[in-house]
Amino acid sequence: MAYFNGPIQVLIEQLSQLPGIGAKSAQRLAFYIIAQPEEKATRLAESILSARQNVRYCTECCTLTDGDMCPVCADQKRDHGTIMVVETPRDLAAYEKTGKYKGVYHVLHGAISPMLGVGPNDIRLKELMKRLASEEIREVIVATNSSLEGETTAMYISKLIKPSGIRTTRIASGVPVGGDLENIDEVTLLRALDGRTVL
Amino acid sequence: MAYFNGPIQVLIEQLSQLPGIGAKSAQRLAFYIIAQPEEKATRLAESILSARQNVRYCTECCTLTDGDMCPVCADQKRDHGTIMVVETPRDLAAYEKTGKYKGVYHVLHGAISPMLGVGPNDIRLKELMKRLASEEIREVIVATNSSLEGETTAMYISKLIKPSGIRTTRIASGVPVGGDLENIDEVTLLRALDGRTVL
Repeated sequence: MAYFNGPIQVLIEQLSQLPGIGAKSAQRLAFYIIAQPEEKATRLAESILSARQNVRYCTECCTLTDGDMCPVCADQKRDHGTIMVVETPRDLAAYEKTGKYKGVYHVLHGAISPMLGVGPNDIRLKELMKRLASEEIREVIVATNSSLEGETTAMYISKLIKPSGIRTTRIASGVPVGGDLENIDEVTLLRALDGRTVL
Repeated sequence: MAYFNGPIQVLIEQLSQLPGIGAKSAQRLAFYIIAQPEEKATRLAESILSARQNVRYCTECCTLTDGDMCPVCADQKRDHGTIMVVETPRDLAAYEKTGKYKGVYHVLHGAISPMLGVGPNDIRLKELMKRLASEEIREVIVATNSSLEGETTAMYISKLIKPSGIRTTRIASGVPVGGDLENIDEVTLLRALDGRTVL
């Protein structure tokens, strides 16, 4: 892939370091960028710099934001007594898109994974416990992924919170709405069965 | 998807304008970039600017390069009497990777497509004809894709060149019909080159 030289090759290399972008995609993206009007390429480059330089962690919930506080935490109409714990800002965005959740969030930036060497101190758990101690929290909803790491993290959090007596819940796992039963893995099917509710 | 605001949202929007990058991928890429050390994000942004600003069309073959002339055209050891006509710089790169082709190239930057409203004047055909008139060319190898557009372009070129008496060949259809040149393995590319026939 070493035919291209100078700035083209540098750009291809930089792009191929992004997650999910292979050598072929990086090449396609590079040529697309080069073929754009100069102001479009400049806007892309500047948006990268601006985002990297201006984005910080929310002082409350640790999500990424460009102010001191994210729009959710700054919103006084939200229920600040209910905290949903998620792994990433993207998970937060997914629940915000529903428009129905009225509480606030806490973003862990990861999940406990002994396999990957990620321990409780490597994610934003201390910040969560600090919030629980100083704020008046009625409920903590643990919405980590239903992967091995997510479940481990959920268990860990529930044990951590138990002594404080704060109600701790876990989002239901089961068959996704609109999903065909035949395409769903057995673990999910069994969990959906375990979690069945009276109609 | 409008939860994120300010610089994050701007970056996500910019990234999602790239080809093959949907809203989800753009979000993932944006958060990856933000989580990088600042100098890494800066390097990415600068590589975009540098590529866009410094890359020009080769004065000979019209491929993209950072000098006046691309490495192939500048190389006196290449056979400048044989021109391979390709659609994109990526196709040129694909043949260069084989390391076996000793001639030079001409990059059309597209193919004739009545459907998409791309006519002969929208690709670098005039530049090719100028080269044929002024240089001593023994053979033109038409290596446009074996898609409808590529074949149309090949036919058009062969008719255009015929009066000059220059030998015009087409790479063999060892290349699977409907395939993009850049995705094809080197052996197939070479076999297609060996099996070229007079148009």
